[in-house]
Amino acid sequence: MATTGKQLFTTLDADGTLTVAIEDVTFPDPTGNQVLVKMEAAPINPSDLAILVGAADLENASYTPGKFVATVPEPFNAGSKARHGLKLPAGNEGAGTVIAAGDSDAAKALVGQRVSCVPGNAYSQYCIADASMCLALGDHTAEDGASAFVNPMTALGFVETARADRQDAMLHTVGASNLGQMLTRICKEDGIGLVNIVRKTSQADLLAGLGSTHVVNSSEDGFMQQLCSAIEDTGAFYGFDPIGGGHAVDTAFKAMEQVAVSKMTEYSRYGSNQPKRMFIYGRLDTGPTILTPSYGFGWTLSGWLLFPFLQSAGRETVDRMRKRVRDNLTTTFASPYKTRVNLDEMLTKEAVTDYRGMKTGEKYLVTPWS
Amino acid sequence: MATTGKQLFTTLDADGTLTVAIEDVTFPDPTGNQVLVKMEAAPINPSDLAILVGAADLENASYTPGKFVATVPEPFNAGSKARHGLKLPAGNEGAGTVIAAGDSDAAKALVGQRVSCVPGNAYSQYCIADASMCLALGDHTAEDGASAFVNPMTALGFVETARADRQDAMLHTVGASNLGQMLTRICKEDGIGLVNIVRKTSQADLLAGLGSTHVVNSSEDGFMQQLCSAIEDTGAFYGFDPIGGGHAVDTAFKAMEQVAVSKMTEYSRYGSNQPKRMFIYGRLDTGPTILTPSYGFGWTLSGWLLFPFLQSAGRETVDRMRKRVRDNLTTTFASPYKTRVNLDEMLTKEAVTDYRGMKTGEKYLVTPWS
Repeated sequence: MATTGKQLFTTLDADGTLTVAIEDVTFPDPTGNQVLVKMEAAPINPSDLAILVGAADLENASYTPGKFVATVPEPFNAGSKARHGLKLPAGNEGAGTVIAAGDSDAAKALVGQRVSCVPGNAYSQYCIADASMCLALGDHTAEDGASAFVNPMTALGFVETARADRQDAMLHTVGASNLGQMLTRICKEDGIGLVNIVRKTSQADLLAGLGSTHVVNSSEDGFMQQLCSAIEDTGAFYGFDPIGGGHAVDTAFKAMEQVAVSKMTEYSRYGSNQPKRMFIYGRLDTGPTILTPSYGFGWTLSGWLLFPFLQSAGRETVDRMRKRVRDNLTTTFASPYKTRVNLDEMLTKEAVTDYRGMKTGEKYLVTPWS
Repeated sequence: MATTGKQLFTTLDADGTLTVAIEDVTFPDPTGNQVLVKMEAAPINPSDLAILVGAADLENASYTPGKFVATVPEPFNAGSKARHGLKLPAGNEGAGTVIAAGDSDAAKALVGQRVSCVPGNAYSQYCIADASMCLALGDHTAEDGASAFVNPMTALGFVETARADRQDAMLHTVGASNLGQMLTRICKEDGIGLVNIVRKTSQADLLAGLGSTHVVNSSEDGFMQQLCSAIEDTGAFYGFDPIGGGHAVDTAFKAMEQVAVSKMTEYSRYGSNQPKRMFIYGRLDTGPTILTPSYGFGWTLSGWLLFPFLQSAGRETVDRMRKRVRDNLTTTFASPYKTRVNLDEMLTKEAVTDYRGMKTGEKYLVTPWS
């Protein structure tokens, strides 16, 4: 059986030329624990964008049906040296129907079922996926299950990470994102304190509507004071940031330290002893992270990524997390979409420019057969 | 018994006026586990400078015998808000002779002995010190023992920290400092790999003379390549940085990641899985720390301070470290001094300007009775 279909590839050449194009591909038969999935829906997540478009100049790119060619400016091109010349697939996750399986019992059991999967080449009409990473969707639609992995498991991963560090509260610097909304629901369900930072009144209203008790708007006067007050209320000296560049982490550390210092009875030139911990899990801002010397030495900042976390968490924890996602797919973990595009449509100037903007509540869904 | 003597105080007012002056003080009788030490020598360490002079404008300060008054510019003055109006002592450590003791056996046993101590007001003719933090110096001079705590325990603390994280190699961004030289000797004695970064050929020569096998000069062409090669040789994906501001940590992370990526067989948009860890333990550069998005998400950066480390390390470890310092005071842990000044002399324009420069090998020693 030779299965052929369309798949997206992204190639960055050494001179900074980025070519993203749909090609016809022959998919191999699945072996062992693999399944072959006819893909029905795949989201465009912020974590997909780095490899899909990165810092490319989309305004001056050339667009033809099923293809665009753009230039990636320096220093971003040199920073991507490791991928120069490689033709890479894209799309972390999606959902579709299993049409063939390898020899393993787990793989064979999925044939004919609709599943959520994490193939890494989800912008494609077919994917080879690992059965152990598939989630059988039952009666759910492909759209219900398309985003069942990256954001749900990341949000649950934050809670697992915080609990492992014996924290019962956390701060999130982009509260109103799709992931932020899931985190808000999870923390509410689990009784974990959560400080949500947003940029707009509409985002604050949205989170308040989800029951978030500590929403702080960075565009308002008195933001810093409100942030300190929310940290003091919740005890959130621990947080997660998808922005990466600029002062997002710095602001969080500053506020945490101000709260800690306000409780000190004696001056210390070294700042408070309150441990402060932040994780950067994304790069919405690709500029450098700026850390000012304003919070002593009692702080730790780490990168955080889903796959290394899952590896270290172990099978039992991961299975428990996945069960929770499946049981609450259209409630706690629901993902709304702004637009549906097929593989050709996702490479038009209008579409690429729009989804690269990563605006809150404007996620794209790729439906490769539409 | 009323003991009186001279002591240095540093006061920062809300308007940014910094007054550093010698005053006559009456010292209380020691109680409990305290001892009264007649101080003979105290070093001016980088860690003392923040509170002593900070970012004050020394060029336009007013100098009178035993006093200077300077202005601390913004944003440094506002950043020191917590100390506004407080008259603070200075001088972490020093050595002298115990002339009185509280009731405890440990305190009484030290009477008449020369000790190294950590009183926090070491720029003084007398100090009250905690007997449990005193190190009896036997036949050593006060100059031998004046710097027996901060740098030796910090360098040993790095080794303890690395070992607790199961590391057998580390990187140090200011290799030729007094602390860096101690670290070089310790790592050599303990068989720990060490990558020393220096800025000058003379510093590279100095460290080579101490037996350092991996010295990399940041002023030379090919620095980055040499740094990568040293990291690859030693496996130092772990390091300590006293600079804080600028790109020192960023450069270390970049080089570590380059080494890790060069060993990868498959491209990953997320960078390598090699954990990379750095600690900032000082602020030689008070500018912001700049972290570029050049090394994926597998990194952690923390502040590191001696006193919180010692608290978490526990008594047994600390005692073992202190014994090693005492047994090797004039070899592994020797501190040379450029100049000796008394309390008045340390507040002259010439002296303050010179020691604030923190040049390698130009440490000042305060001898309050000279």
